[in-house]
Amino acid sequence: MPDVDAPVGAAVATPPSAPVLGVSAGSPDSAEGELDVRAVADLIDGRWRERRRASRDLALDPAFHRLPDQSVAEHRARVLEQLHLILDRGDVLRGFPREVGGGGDPGGNLAGFEELFLGDPSIQIKGGVQWGLFGSAVQHLGVPEQHARWLPGIMSLEVPGCFAMTEVGHGSDVASIATTATYDPQTEEFVLHTPFAAARKEYIGNAALHGLAAVVFAQLVTKGRNHGVHALYVPLRERGEDGELRFLPGIGGRDDGPKGGLNGIDNGQLWFDHVRVPRENLLRRYGDVAPDGTYSSPIASKGRRFFTMLGTLVQGRVSLGGAAVGVSKAALSIAVRYGDERRQFTGADENREVTLLDYQRHQRRLLPLLARTYAAGFAQLGLLQRFHEVFSGEHDDDESRQDLETLAAALKPTTTWLAMETLQESREACGGAGFMAENRLVTWRQDFDVYTTFEGDNNVLLQLVGKRLLTDYGKAMGKIDVAGAARFVAARAGDLALHRTPLRRAAQSVVDSGSAARSAGHLRDPDVQRELLEDRVETMVAAIAGALREVKDASPEEATEVFNAHQDELIATAKAHAELLLWEAFTAALPTVPEGTTREVLTWLRDLYGLERIERNLAWYLINGRLTAQRARVVTGYINRLLTRLRPHAVDLVDAFGYTDAHLRAPIASGAERERQEEAASHLRRRRALPERVAAG
Amino acid sequence: MPDVDAPVGAAVATPPSAPVLGVSAGSPDSAEGELDVRAVADLIDGRWRERRRASRDLALDPAFHRLPDQSVAEHRARVLEQLHLILDRGDVLRGFPREVGGGGDPGGNLAGFEELFLGDPSIQIKGGVQWGLFGSAVQHLGVPEQHARWLPGIMSLEVPGCFAMTEVGHGSDVASIATTATYDPQTEEFVLHTPFAAARKEYIGNAALHGLAAVVFAQLVTKGRNHGVHALYVPLRERGEDGELRFLPGIGGRDDGPKGGLNGIDNGQLWFDHVRVPRENLLRRYGDVAPDGTYSSPIASKGRRFFTMLGTLVQGRVSLGGAAVGVSKAALSIAVRYGDERRQFTGADENREVTLLDYQRHQRRLLPLLARTYAAGFAQLGLLQRFHEVFSGEHDDDESRQDLETLAAALKPTTTWLAMETLQESREACGGAGFMAENRLVTWRQDFDVYTTFEGDNNVLLQLVGKRLLTDYGKAMGKIDVAGAARFVAARAGDLALHRTPLRRAAQSVVDSGSAARSAGHLRDPDVQRELLEDRVETMVAAIAGALREVKDASPEEATEVFNAHQDELIATAKAHAELLLWEAFTAALPTVPEGTTREVLTWLRDLYGLERIERNLAWYLINGRLTAQRARVVTGYINRLLTRLRPHAVDLVDAFGYTDAHLRAPIASGAERERQEEAASHLRRRRALPERVAAG
Repeated sequence: MPDVDAPVGAAVATPPSAPVLGVSAGSPDSAEGELDVRAVADLIDGRWRERRRASRDLALDPAFHRLPDQSVAEHRARVLEQLHLILDRGDVLRGFPREVGGGGDPGGNLAGFEELFLGDPSIQIKGGVQWGLFGSAVQHLGVPEQHARWLPGIMSLEVPGCFAMTEVGHGSDVASIATTATYDPQTEEFVLHTPFAAARKEYIGNAALHGLAAVVFAQLVTKGRNHGVHALYVPLRERGEDGELRFLPGIGGRDDGPKGGLNGIDNGQLWFDHVRVPRENLLRRYGDVAPDGTYSSPIASKGRRFFTMLGTLVQGRVSLGGAAVGVSKAALSIAVRYGDERRQFTGADENREVTLLDYQRHQRRLLPLLARTYAAGFAQLGLLQRFHEVFSGEHDDDESRQDLETLAAALKPTTTWLAMETLQESREACGGAGFMAENRLVTWRQDFDVYTTFEGDNNVLLQLVGKRLLTDYGKAMGKIDVAGAARFVAARAGDLALHRTPLRRAAQSVVDSGSAARSAGHLRDPDVQRELLEDRVETMVAAIAGALREVKDASPEEATEVFNAHQDELIATAKAHAELLLWEAFTAALPTVPEGTTREVLTWLRDLYGLERIERNLAWYLINGRLTAQRARVVTGYINRLLTRLRPHAVDLVDAFGYTDAHLRAPIASGAERERQEEAASHLRRRRALPERVAAG
Repeated sequence: MPDVDAPVGAAVATPPSAPVLGVSAGSPDSAEGELDVRAVADLIDGRWRERRRASRDLALDPAFHRLPDQSVAEHRARVLEQLHLILDRGDVLRGFPREVGGGGDPGGNLAGFEELFLGDPSIQIKGGVQWGLFGSAVQHLGVPEQHARWLPGIMSLEVPGCFAMTEVGHGSDVASIATTATYDPQTEEFVLHTPFAAARKEYIGNAALHGLAAVVFAQLVTKGRNHGVHALYVPLRERGEDGELRFLPGIGGRDDGPKGGLNGIDNGQLWFDHVRVPRENLLRRYGDVAPDGTYSSPIASKGRRFFTMLGTLVQGRVSLGGAAVGVSKAALSIAVRYGDERRQFTGADENREVTLLDYQRHQRRLLPLLARTYAAGFAQLGLLQRFHEVFSGEHDDDESRQDLETLAAALKPTTTWLAMETLQESREACGGAGFMAENRLVTWRQDFDVYTTFEGDNNVLLQLVGKRLLTDYGKAMGKIDVAGAARFVAARAGDLALHRTPLRRAAQSVVDSGSAARSAGHLRDPDVQRELLEDRVETMVAAIAGALREVKDASPEEATEVFNAHQDELIATAKAHAELLLWEAFTAALPTVPEGTTREVLTWLRDLYGLERIERNLAWYLINGRLTAQRARVVTGYINRLLTRLRPHAVDLVDAFGYTDAHLRAPIASGAERERQEEAASHLRRRRALPERVAAG
């Protein structure tokens, strides 16, 4: 029996006697051979791997590193400088059209952008504000003439600018913003106005200090009618004779001050007191006002126009998700490498402490996150591909755009919450060392925190996804028979997959085997995993749709109440849908993995992903008769077996992420721990070689 | 049917038309009358409520506030000053014995200490290092003569000092530290030495700058024998002629630099190169060395001696848990008040947006955390009472000390993880505003992060608790019959309770009712909740014990492997045990709550706590036949009913925590949101009163 009170048994002589570090003991069912790290790296870095790696390597230059202990003012100034530097040396304009001097490569652009967090996430987000939001808004909401006029200054950073959408009173509910742009035909100008404090623009990057202009979103009013939210290009500041920047007349602002992270960006408020801008400053691709005030738009429906305009800005959500996957990979690279070296408490051999990652609990903490990060990575590659197809024009139609938006809305919450969880678990798994800023986990966590609520609050996005599932379900129910309709979610998930085997009903809930081994074999079957994950989404959607159908003729109050009573379930359904998408993406990637050990290990990792998701919702499968108690019991045991199988490959699996010690700059993950242990072990070996009475000294 | 695409329907005219803010609509089963906030406040502030409130009010003084955007150096200097200030104006020496000028009131002392986070958690932790660790070590490990010599300087802050226990190579495994204190009978001195880099003292508060002395933990070696870990009082620095502090000869150090939080404390490394300290500097209460080098101790067993010494330092774990409960209360005070005012998206009435806390999802995010915080608060009061009994001498024996340590080890992980979860969910629930440093959630989160791994890593502590459960189970199995043994966990949990109704087997897994209403009634029954929570702990302990019993004669390797294969389960069992303790503490408090609405509401909150814990582990109850699918299905529905019942009382429930706007200093929770909404609503009302064509401007 092992030592139940380890701290008692342990004494000065316990550190490793012969530290065969970094070499993991094989387990009976471990894979022979080694992982083809290079092949896996190529796979998960995807189509734009060269762009991605170039961007990673750019962050090796200390000029792009965050300095410790900067004041907010210093940090802001440095990040502005870094933007200029990255403009000179990076490839940050690749996403803009060739006509204005860009690279016409939206996918490659985002792939590079996603890696910028390695230097400092503030560079990523300030760059995102400038080129991804301010610039993109001009690009997508403006017409070519406006591109020619404003994009050069935006791209060159001559005009740092703001994306002024969010207001104090309205965050994710953009349609309800209250700033007005009222057309005055007398002067052919718009009068931009903040009618009350809740309508002030809030949390706007570049607003506190650096913004010379902004794209301002406002309710467009002409001839006494409100045509909904439109965007205008608005000059904000000019440089005075003393060289200082000052707001133009009628414009006010406030510095948001220190934040929980991303302090390299100068967020602030902006407000407008009857500020006049020329008619030509309305970004007019989706709505224009003639000199006499007549409104026109290529899209008649106010609602559709709004969503079309917002849809062009999906890039933010896509790239935040990509960065979140990147930081999860980086965090796991640190925690897994450290966990593979660090030893603590003795086990069977009282002269040698156990490596953290050999403890079951440590495996349970990190390896499922590794599996989720792989799954999220593959799903994110699919999203990026979709994004590129739409925005490069390779495959751009209404349906593709809608699918892209729904997919981005499903993945952004999934990946940003995954990043939060991974960063925190990694930090705790590294103990006190994880809390030191030099090891980077805590500062990344501070910076990435806000990714869960900006560019659309995660819960609000998931609710939108849930509503889309309901709408699709409603349409499918109208068109096809019930059995067919029940598969609609599967069809949507399959959209993402490159490759997809035909479904079959595994009926594991009906026919149950008597043996645990057979149950485990059953769970390993990808068709069974898919079936379980799909079935849950389908059944949940159908249940909510059923409840809503019952009140479709009720009063608005009653209907709202019923809807609200299912809100939590609807959001859970959207999450389950996203989990299925991740599973599909991971599964679709497997046939492209080199056969043998590499494919075997990645298949275990996919199984771990799928089964851990099923384990989390095991009660649902039991209550709804999808799994018997006997089979459900096997899930956890089989996950534990997967952990021991994957453990020897854990370091290879993070090595494939491509983050070297130089990229990570985290002392604990750079072999220092191993050196210290070797020194300690050699000291203790020498001591043990001496007679006992002397050895103790 | 409600608007499935809210953002489309919403437009400029949607903000509240007649904001009857802060008034919550009653639901059919809402309680009549109001909560007796004052009575609840008295109850949850507990025995030392006056101390607690005085400490809270002390933090109203701006002198104790953290300044925004300080450098690490400025923050450290300010917190040192604040310690002097709090010494003058607070009651921080109350925990020391009367003989040395303290208050002889360990419980009252910690109650006050727990609230110090309101000013800045760095004050709490730097004070904790000085008086709670450095001072306590001298007090508990030294003899009266040593108290007289060193405590006055420690108490008065004349000698800021360190608690030098943790080493680079060993954190939670204190028994394995490698610093040595070798006795030299020639000079009657100890030679303190760091044999290799992994033995350097690490993360030591006051080590980087301010520490003049330290209690250093080292392996005590005399006459060639190692007697295990002991503590020595060691001078570290002296002031040079230039007024600067310098390390004494042979002592080295390193500044840990910026951390994830708590940057008001100067953590660092310390190491010793054959540093000589007089024999009298060994804190000798539990082990002494005679001038000739003969070792003696009142405790013969090295292991028991080690645990006795460490046990005297339990105060840290007790107080961290208390602070974690405090910050959870504060975070919920902010998030619930904001959620009760903030409106977003329209519901049935398209002229009036819905209050966040009226959304089911928002209730689901915050109210179960509120229930857990209440439960944790009651459990923490019980722990503090225990702590006071032992350390005031009111009730001090071996068993009480062991129970206190196990209880502290179970509660510290539970409360510190609760704080992390509550701070993060509260921050996200407040959206972008939650990310602004001025609203305090993010900085508290940064500071409290390390509470999960210091003073014993949470996972290591839970494993200790699990081992204790196994040991007790083993003992109970030896003594009494099986049926009796199966209740041992219940008996341990009951220890904490002030009041306890007799148990009965509810047998809900055998006899199942046909009606959902009856099932809900069943779940409301506290005996059923207790039964479900207890049964899970008991069964899990018995299962692990059974697996270990089977290998008790196996090789160490095999036994270790089996133990490791159950490690995750063992830790889950310890968590379940802690959850049961919280439920018991909450339940024991209910009879002391004023009858009527107040007791009714708190009983719902207790039910929410218990059922939400059961819901999280629903699969276990189903797999193990404790709940049928039918009954399990009711759990979530009943939780949702409790949410709507509790919602109208949510603000009262956080008001009872006693944190006013002035204590919280969070602009979003200070009524600013309400004012903004009133201004916006009045503007929109005026506009609606005008003819349509004009109104839009």
